Parts: sequence; C-alpha cells; structure tokens
Amino acid sequence: MPEADKPIFERLALIGVGLIGSSIARAARQRGLVQTIAASARSEATRRRVAELKLADQVFDTNAEAAKDADLVIVCVPVGACGAVAVEIGPVLKPGAVVSDVGSVKAAIIHDMAPHLPKSVHFVPAHPVAGTEHSGPDAGFAELFDNRWCILTPVNGTDPEAVERLKAFWEALGSNVEIMDAQHHDMVLAITSHVPHLIAYNIVHTAEHLQQVTESEVIKFSAGGFRDFTRIAASDPTMWRDVFLHNKEAVLEMLGRFSEDLAVLTRAIRYGDGKTLFDLFTRTRAIRRSIIEVGQETAEPDFGRKHGVKEPPAPLPRPYASD
Amino acid sequence: MPEADKPIFERLALIGVGLIGSSIARAARQRGLVQTIAASARSEATRRRVAELKLADQVFDTNAEAAKDADLVIVCVPVGACGAVAVEIGPVLKPGAVVSDVGSVKAAIIHDMAPHLPKSVHFVPAHPVAGTEHSGPDAGFAELFDNRWCILTPVNGTDPEAVERLKAFWEALGSNVEIMDAQHHDMVLAITSHVPHLIAYNIVHTAEHLQQVTESEVIKFSAGGFRDFTRIAASDPTMWRDVFLHNKEAVLEMLGRFSEDLAVLTRAIRYGDGKTLFDLFTRTRAIRRSIIEVGQETAEPDFGRKHGVKEPPAPLPRPYASD
Repeated sequence: MPEADKPIFERLALIGVGLIGSSIARAARQRGLVQTIAASARSEATRRRVAELKLADQVFDTNAEAAKDADLVIVCVPVGACGAVAVEIGPVLKPGAVVSDVGSVKAAIIHDMAPHLPKSVHFVPAHPVAGTEHSGPDAGFAELFDNRWCILTPVNGTDPEAVERLKAFWEALGSNVEIMDAQHHDMVLAITSHVPHLIAYNIVHTAEHLQQVTESEVIKFSAGGFRDFTRIAASDPTMWRDVFLHNKEAVLEMLGRFSEDLAVLTRAIRYGDGKTLFDLFTRTRAIRRSIIEVGQETAEPDFGRKHGVKEPPAPLPRPYASD
Repeated sequence: MPEADKPIFERLALIGVGLIGSSIARAARQRGLVQTIAASARSEATRRRVAELKLADQVFDTNAEAAKDADLVIVCVPVGACGAVAVEIGPVLKPGAVVSDVGSVKAAIIHDMAPHLPKSVHFVPAHPVAGTEHSGPDAGFAELFDNRWCILTPVNGTDPEAVERLKAFWEALGSNVEIMDAQHHDMVLAITSHVPHLIAYNIVHTAEHLQQVTESEVIKFSAGGFRDFTRIAASDPTMWRDVFLHNKEAVLEMLGRFSEDLAVLTRAIRYGDGKTLFDLFTRTRAIRRSIIEVGQETAEPDFGRKHGVKEPPAPLPRPYASD
C-alpha cells in the first residue's frame, strides 16, 4: 500500500465512529494520512470509548463542533441519518473542505445531503465495500480496507481535484478506488450486497419459526450450510434497515429477479428435472474461482475456518452500538 | 477426541473416495480405528489418486470386490447412486457386516438401499454434517469431522449393538453422534443445509444473468456480502442435484416458507415499513451467537478471513471429481 510522505488532509472529522469510522481512524493514524482527527458520536458511551481507545485527538458532543475547521469530513452514520447530519454540519463547514460519507447506498444520500451543504465545499460521496458482521468502535481495525474496493460517486460538475484527493486518501487506506454514477452503484450493490443480506436475514428468520425443527437442531446442525448465512445476518440492524429503505427501487428489482429464478429451481425440484439443477450448479463454481483470483476472497477451503480446533468462546458478536 | 485402544472394525470398505470418503480414510488410519482399508471408485483417475495418496491398502475396480469381506462398508457416493451400489454389493456382503453411507438425505437412501441388502447385515444410515466446498480425494483431511455432528438414522428393529459400534466409530473420527428418525433428519437438513445451498446457487445464478451489472462488477464488489454465498454455491453439482431430487418434499416445504417470509420482507421494503425490517434484523444476531457458543462456527470476525494479506493464488476450487 502507498506510504504517504505527508498528510493528505490536515484535519479529518469523523461523524460517527463505528466499525467503519474507527477503522478509518486507525488506518489514517497509522499511515500518517492526516494531522489531526476530530470525532463526534451520538451516544455518550461511544464518545467515551473513542476517547479511551485514542481513536481521535478531540471528541465532540455535537457533529457541528467536530466538522468545524476540518479539511475532510467523513460522515460514518447509518444511511437514514446522513441528511440530518448534513443539516447540522452544513453551516459550519470550512470553505474548500471535502465532505464525504461511507454509506452503502449513494443516490439517496446525495438526495438527502447535497441540498444542505454549502457551494463552497466539495461533496464526494464514497462507499468502501468492506466490513465485518461486528459493529461499534471496538470492532474496527486498520487493515479493513486493504485490497477492498472503495466506490466514489461524485455528481457531475464536482471539482476533479477534490475527487483526486479523496481517491488518494482511500488508496492510502489500502483500497482500490472506482468511480461510477450513483444510480449504477446502487444497482451493483443491490445484487452484490443488499439482496444477499436480505435473504440471509430471511432464512435465519424462517429457520427460527419452524415447528417441525427446533432452534437447538438448527444451531447444532448449522455446519451443513446455514451458518454461512448467519454471519451477514448478524450485521447491524439499523444500518441494514436504512439500506433497504433507501435503495428500494434497485433492491425490489433484484429481489424480483431472484424470486423468479428461485421459482424456476423450485419447479425443477418439483418435477424432478435434474438436468436444469445440474447445469446451473455447474456454472456457479466459476464465479467463486474468479472472486478468489482477483483477491476478494480467501482461497482456503471453508473460508480458512480452523478444523479440529475448538474455538475460544470470545469474542462473540457484541450488542449493538447505536452509532 | 477418544483414542481407540484397538480397531473398532477390522476391515473398512469405502465405496467412493471423494471429500468425505477420503477424510474417513485419513482419520480412521491416523487414529487406528480399522486394520485394513479397501476402496473402490468409479473413475480410473480417482482410483489412481487414491493409490498414490495411500488412502487405502487395496483399491478395486468394482464396488463388489471392495465390499467383500469388509466388517464396515461405508458408501460415499452421491445420494442418487446409492441404490445401484446396494444392488452391486448386496450379494457379496459378509454376514454381520455393518453397512452405512454418508448421504445428506436419509429416507430416500433407506428406500433405495435397504431392499437390496441381505438380512444378515446391519444397515445403519449415517450423515456426517461436515464438508467443504471442495471435492475429490485430494480435498479430504483427517480433522474434517472433529466437533461436527454425525446423525445416524437406523430403522426400527436394527441391532442396537451395530448402532453402538458405528456410533463409537464416528465418535472416534471426532464427531458428536445423534440418532434420529430419517424423516425428521430430512426436515432438519432441508432448512439447515439444503435450502441454504439452493438459495446460494440461485443468487449466484441471478447475478450472472444481469444486464445492468457486469460479471466483473459482481466479482469486484463481492466483499459486500455476495462472496459468502459463493462458497457453498461452489459445492459439487452432482451431489447437490441428487440431494434436491431425493429430498423433494421437505425442500419444497421449506422453500415455500422461505418464499412466504421473503414476500413479507419485500412488501416491508416496498411500503417503507422500517419497523418490520429492524425487528427481524435484531433477532437474527442471537442465532449466530448460539452457533458460535456451541462450537459450530468460528467466533472470529469475517470467518477469520485474513485482512491486509494478499491471498496466495492456490489452491483454487478444482474441477469436479466424478466420484
């Protein structure tokens, strides 16, 4: 990863310090990408933890205080809260500052934030496609973005120099950067992230409500495949509720296709059409191979889960941090 | 895991030596659970590889030769092939032998195999709930069954001593053993394994056929969730075709429930019902926690995938071994 000779931005403000915000703080600090980090968080508990972990030089109670004087402001709160943050920070932003976010949805964030930001700042929406199922300031780590993609979706007319600076920042955080249109982003992420999360949540829910099979049986025999789905179904519920509410069109479009395709498979099972099943199951291995080849997945069997080793009981998924 | 003082069975015959068969061979040998291992495999390539890897003392071209004189015969072929194997080995089986299998479906296997087995042998169907996305004799390893469940589904009237011996064998392989009715097994596995595999295959298929999103975009941005599904969608297509064709009723029942539940979530998204989404997403984390607590899943974030480390290019999923 590139080493910064000098900071890319002087003062970074993080509005919200959960998994993503705290990972940015750790990586930016470790790699010398900024001089000073200011942060704000909605809950007192998170602010205290951010101070204890020394994730920021200054921790503020209000978003406006954190954003004031910053050269780069990154809003790291759930998608549904971004508009309100823009209202709070808009009036105090430093002229020439770059304002960005990390939301998994882009068109809605542009719609909600842009009208509240002054013309004197450069708004460059961003989405690092990286994460784990854990949340909160303790969950972050400096390597989270290494070799992951970060998508920037600047609107037409954005100052190219601001886009370049933010690109350099994300590259220095370890990411590969791609620039695309917000609408296209939302379509791509609907299929690669949003619908997968929805169906993972859904099957866990279905399993939970069976009368014929007990919950303890679902848990015991989960190594047959079910447990793979529970990882992403353990993700932050506020974040994901907001994603679905704010990327409705694309998610409904992709869900429609998923359901149509599932109907075809269901019918093949009902009528004993083994050829349809076999042909489809044969093609899917190639996609995994490609994902491994481009370094977006581990090549180790079973995700490299250890076999024959009793796992230590900790760390379990934590209760939700509220921001 | 328990150490065997003396072999539990003298002569083990493995009919089929893929991921599961070769893992049994490795673990049984390493832990001294049997004196001799005989094996057969459908393809010449597999037989050669089994000999090269020294997975068996004797490798036979026909299943009957391998099964003859064995005290324990384990049929490790796709579910749809088990009936034909029973026809082949039935006439040569040694009186008093225990005959078992490793199929992911149990009622259909009993239906297909039992009529062809002589009354002088003890048929105890088994299903080790363990595996990886890889297949073939090279993919196996001795620790595969450690701390995983193996379900035995003997029919009423089976000699309890034969069941106990097979139970002891699987425990010595590292497994926890549960005994249940075949129909109940098929229902439990439909939700914990079969339907998860089907929807994983399905979403990979849906993603592959989009016009709005390119395959290269799906691959690049897969870290947003999609890649978790590709692991089980890289599983052996023959095995999985057979599972769906032979556990039709239970899979259709569970798929029906899954689709109903997905319709409710789809509707909640369409009408902006954030409460329904949030409430459901909140409950699912508890199930993952339980799965980790009982040792069926790694507690490490992101399955313990390495971050900040470029994965080595090998080993990639291999082409399919045919048995």
